[in-house]
Amino acid sequence: MERIDYKKLIIETPDFPIPGVLFRDVSPLLQDAQALQQMIQDFSKLIDLNQVDAFVGIESRGFIFASLLAAKLNKGFVPLRKVGKLPPPTVKKTYQLEYGEATLEMAHSRIAGKNRVIICDDVLATGGTLNAAVELVSAAGFQVQDVLVLIDLTFLNQMKFNSGPVKSLIQY
Amino acid sequence: MERIDYKKLIIETPDFPIPGVLFRDVSPLLQDAQALQQMIQDFSKLIDLNQVDAFVGIESRGFIFASLLAAKLNKGFVPLRKVGKLPPPTVKKTYQLEYGEATLEMAHSRIAGKNRVIICDDVLATGGTLNAAVELVSAAGFQVQDVLVLIDLTFLNQMKFNSGPVKSLIQY
Repeated sequence: MERIDYKKLIIETPDFPIPGVLFRDVSPLLQDAQALQQMIQDFSKLIDLNQVDAFVGIESRGFIFASLLAAKLNKGFVPLRKVGKLPPPTVKKTYQLEYGEATLEMAHSRIAGKNRVIICDDVLATGGTLNAAVELVSAAGFQVQDVLVLIDLTFLNQMKFNSGPVKSLIQY
Repeated sequence: MERIDYKKLIIETPDFPIPGVLFRDVSPLLQDAQALQQMIQDFSKLIDLNQVDAFVGIESRGFIFASLLAAKLNKGFVPLRKVGKLPPPTVKKTYQLEYGEATLEMAHSRIAGKNRVIICDDVLATGGTLNAAVELVSAAGFQVQDVLVLIDLTFLNQMKFNSGPVKSLIQY
């Protein structure tokens, strides 16, 4: 089958959700079953599957990518949630946003010896959320092997993981 | 491999998030790769895959189940989001909660002739969210073929879809 050009399936909306921001909607890409399979395959080429037990999804759009990979690659799924949604005991991490702050929360690892994870999200912008996620997932007892995003807005960040750039399928 | 008893992997926390509510945390089930594959297989037995183009996930935990099924069963994924997160044009639906109300929002179908969907969520409680989702997904131009949930709290609802009970893997 012919390869799908991801960028052609992303719809750009200027000034959403606030003036000056260009919103990139990946819904058409996700609705296309062929694009979705190509995406999973492209992601799997970026990582060492023998070193992974589960994919961590950051609420809420990170849930999508971590679940897609877990299902197809026969791994577990671990949620990294917004604060207040998980029963104790949990670990929390508050971090700065451009305006204000946000808090992420997660449970400790539940399965001994199955703690090697890859953190997934839709978009890497400034890196605030992903950097907090790496710290929090480690504090919860997991070994963070890698970080995967669908889209890297490279002009907004210089985030590194293990001294390399964060792995992504689409760059702007 | 031996069959996994889902209920043994669900952790119950009384009085969370509010007094009188028994919170059932499915995280240990999701972290277990074998349980996750069994879950996808059990779900797939409840539906007619030839009549499905995509799985609709209700934000945010429904994203997990719809994505797991889309990836493994080679279908598309469609997000049903909380209000304010999608650029226009969208369709919206406000519905009553036990206290207050909530609004869901989604984009119109993007792929002509690929509109047959199954709506997925984690838990069916009173049915308020799922009933609103069925109406909204139809209004957005999709054909709702079925509704799937991981857990049906049968003592809280008598929800039907196509004159049968909502399909679920775990009942209380």
